[in-house]
Amino acid sequence: MDDTPLKPSRRRFLAGAAVAGVAGAAGAAEPDPLITEVQPWASGFGEGVDATPYGLPIRFESDVIRRNVEWLTADTISSINFTPIHALDGTITPAGCSFERHHSGAIELSKDDYRLMINGTETPTVFDYADLERFPRENHTYFLECAANTGMEWAGAQLNGAQFTHGMIHNMEYSGIPVRTLLREAGHDGATKGKWLYVEGADASSNGRSIPLEKAMDDCLIAIKANGEALRMEHGYPARLVVPGWEGNLWVKWIRRMEITDGPVESREETSKYTDTLADGTSRKWTWVMDAKSVVTSPSPQAPILHGPGPLVITGMAWSGHGKVARVDVSKDGGKTWETARLAADPGNKALLRFYLDTVWDGKEMFLQSRAVDETGYVQPTKAQLRAVRGLNSVYHNNCIQTWWVKPNGEAENVEVS
Amino acid sequence: MDDTPLKPSRRRFLAGAAVAGVAGAAGAAEPDPLITEVQPWASGFGEGVDATPYGLPIRFESDVIRRNVEWLTADTISSINFTPIHALDGTITPAGCSFERHHSGAIELSKDDYRLMINGTETPTVFDYADLERFPRENHTYFLECAANTGMEWAGAQLNGAQFTHGMIHNMEYSGIPVRTLLREAGHDGATKGKWLYVEGADASSNGRSIPLEKAMDDCLIAIKANGEALRMEHGYPARLVVPGWEGNLWVKWIRRMEITDGPVESREETSKYTDTLADGTSRKWTWVMDAKSVVTSPSPQAPILHGPGPLVITGMAWSGHGKVARVDVSKDGGKTWETARLAADPGNKALLRFYLDTVWDGKEMFLQSRAVDETGYVQPTKAQLRAVRGLNSVYHNNCIQTWWVKPNGEAENVEVS
Repeated sequence: MDDTPLKPSRRRFLAGAAVAGVAGAAGAAEPDPLITEVQPWASGFGEGVDATPYGLPIRFESDVIRRNVEWLTADTISSINFTPIHALDGTITPAGCSFERHHSGAIELSKDDYRLMINGTETPTVFDYADLERFPRENHTYFLECAANTGMEWAGAQLNGAQFTHGMIHNMEYSGIPVRTLLREAGHDGATKGKWLYVEGADASSNGRSIPLEKAMDDCLIAIKANGEALRMEHGYPARLVVPGWEGNLWVKWIRRMEITDGPVESREETSKYTDTLADGTSRKWTWVMDAKSVVTSPSPQAPILHGPGPLVITGMAWSGHGKVARVDVSKDGGKTWETARLAADPGNKALLRFYLDTVWDGKEMFLQSRAVDETGYVQPTKAQLRAVRGLNSVYHNNCIQTWWVKPNGEAENVEVS
Repeated sequence: MDDTPLKPSRRRFLAGAAVAGVAGAAGAAEPDPLITEVQPWASGFGEGVDATPYGLPIRFESDVIRRNVEWLTADTISSINFTPIHALDGTITPAGCSFERHHSGAIELSKDDYRLMINGTETPTVFDYADLERFPRENHTYFLECAANTGMEWAGAQLNGAQFTHGMIHNMEYSGIPVRTLLREAGHDGATKGKWLYVEGADASSNGRSIPLEKAMDDCLIAIKANGEALRMEHGYPARLVVPGWEGNLWVKWIRRMEITDGPVESREETSKYTDTLADGTSRKWTWVMDAKSVVTSPSPQAPILHGPGPLVITGMAWSGHGKVARVDVSKDGGKTWETARLAADPGNKALLRFYLDTVWDGKEMFLQSRAVDETGYVQPTKAQLRAVRGLNSVYHNNCIQTWWVKPNGEAENVEVS
C-alpha cells in the first residue's frame, strides 16, 4: 500500500467526502460492519424465479409512484396524476409510473370489443384489432406532454416538486400503424376535399379533437404497444392515437373513430378547453405544438441534496415538439450565468432528452434553472417573457424556465426569480 | 358514395379479408352491434386516477408474463424465467416481464445497506450508494442475453415457443457510472500490473467472474437505473454490472466488489459453468461475446396466425454483441430463399433491433427463419454449421438460425430443417 500523498492527477473525486474507509487503507475510518461481517443476504437464499408473474418495483421504492393532487380537480374520474420525474433517470418512462389523464375515467375495452371506424373517405371502413395487426407498423420514441403541464405555475410558484410542476409528461417507444396507411386503406387518396381529421375515443367523454389532415398524414400513429408491451388500460388499451410533439389531449385513447372533415369540429375540448386565454380575455386556439422546454429533476424539492459540498450531479430532461433539442444550459444563479449541459445521448425527434451538469457544489444556495434550445433556434423563455406575451389567464402551454432554490442544507423549493 | 369498382391504385389492402362493413358502405356486411349500438364503456364512468399507485398491465394481457420451465432446473432458487418475447414489439423490454436468472435467489438489499468495494488498486475504496450518485453517469440501451439462451436447442427442437427458445434476453436503457471512473477513483491509473477484474455480487452465490480489464475500462457500467427507474430487486437492486454485448452471467447483480488481479480467478462460474464443451469433451473458455443472432417472434408457436391468407406482418428481433446489426434476412422456405427485412430503426450498438417483413401469406405452410448479419460481416449460422464446429455437448452460445414450421391452419411449431 502506497501511503504517500496522492499527486493531483490522482486526487480522488470524493476524497474526504463520503468514501467509507477499508480496513488497512490510508486514512481508514471506523470499520464498517457492512463490509467486515457476513451479511444475511450473503448467507441464505433469496426469492425464486416464480415469485411474481409480473414484476413490480422493490418495496424500498414504494414512494416512486404516480400521484394525484386532490384539490386540483373535483373528482378523480376526470383528473390527472403525475409521473415521479424527480426520481427517474434516462429517458424511457416506465408505463407503471407514467402519468394519466382521464376525462371520464379509464375504461376496460378488450381487443375483441375494439373497433376503429374511418369515415369521410371514399370507402368508409371499420377495422377490428386483428386488422390493425396486419398493417406495416413503425416504432418511434416520443414524449407526450399534457398542454396543462406546469399550468398551475402561471400565477406563481405553487407546487413544490418537479413531479407536480412538470410531471404531466412521459416518453415511450411506440409501435403502431401510421394513420396515413389506414386513411388510404379507407379510400383517402389525397384528392379528398377535407382538410381536417376529427378523432374520438370510445370512453364516455369521447374527447373529440380536430387535427389538420396534413399532420395526421405526416407522422401520427395508431399505437398498439408502448415500451414493447400492450398499452396499459389507463393509456388507452388496446389502441391510442399518437400525435408526435403535439399536446397530449390530442393523443386520443381507446380511439374509436377518425373522420375526414372540411373544417374543424370546434368541440368542447378545443374551445372551452385547450385554448389559451390571453390577458384581454380572448382565447388563442389551435396551439397544438408543445414548445421547447426543460426542467431540472435533481436536485429539486422532492430530491434534495443529501450530502454536503463537493461533487454533485445536476440532471434533468428537455424536449421540443418542433423536433430535436439542440442544447441545454444550466444556471445556478437564477439565469445570470449559464453553463452548457452534457447531453446523455444524440437528441431524438420529439423525444425526451436527458442532460447532466457534473459540477462541484460549494455548499452555498443556488437558484437552479435549465433552458432548452431546439433545432429551430427557439430558446425556452423565462416566466416574465411568457407573461409579457400571454398574461396571467392561461392554463395551458406554460413552457417557462423553472427555478429551484437550493438551500445550504440541500433542501430545494419552488420559487420565482425576477 | 362512389360505387364504381376500385381502381388498382385504390385497391384495399385487406379487401375481402377481415374488414367489417359499415352500414351504407359498398358491400356492407351484417350490422356490427359494436358500432351500431352505444356500448357500456361509452355511457358510464371508468376508473379514477388514484386506482393504482403503480400500474400493471390490463387483465386481458395476464398471459404476457415471465415463465419458468419446471423441469429445467432442480429448484426455482437457482433457475431462470423467460421474457414473453412472442407477445412484445419494439425494442425496450419492460422490467416487469424481463427475464431473470438467480444463482441463489433474488436478495433484498437496501440502498443504505449497499457497499461497493474496489481493491487491487492503489487506494482500495468502498463506495456507498450515495457515493455512486455523485459520479458523472451515462445512458445506454443494451441487450442482456444469457449464455444459455437457446441452449436446450443444441440437441434438437425441444421447446415450443420463442419465449422458451429465445426468451433469456432483455433490452433496457441503463443509467450508470462507467467502471473506469470508479477504478480510477480507487487509484487505478493504467500503470497497474493487473490485467483482469474480478467481480462478485452480494448474494450467497457471489457469482464471481473474471473480466479482462480492457473491457471493464472500455464500456462497462455500474447501473443504478434501468428504463429510467430503479432496478427491480430481481435485476440487482440497487446496482448491477453492465457488460455490453457479453454473456449475461457477467452482468453481476447486487455487485459488491471489483478487484484488479494479475490473472483470472478461474471461478466455478467460468470453469464448471459458462464454458463450451466441445465434441471431444474439452471445454472452450472465455467465450464472452454474444455473437449475432435473431429470431422471428411472430408468427411463432405462441403467436399463431389467427387470420387467413392475405397481408401478414412477420416480425422479430436481432442483436450482436460485436456492435450493430447491419441486415436481417427472412426466409419462408427453410433457408432456400431469403428476403431482406425492414429495420424499424437505426441499429443501436449492442442493442436489440426490431425487424419486419410486410408480406402476403398464400395460406400454405412456411418454414420461417431469420438471419442476422452484423457490422463485422459475421452471418448468423445454421444449426448444422454450428454443430459441425461445436458438436452436440454444448449448452451455451447457441446462436443458430431458428425455424418455425407455420402450418396452413396458422399454427406454428419448433422444427429443424436439414
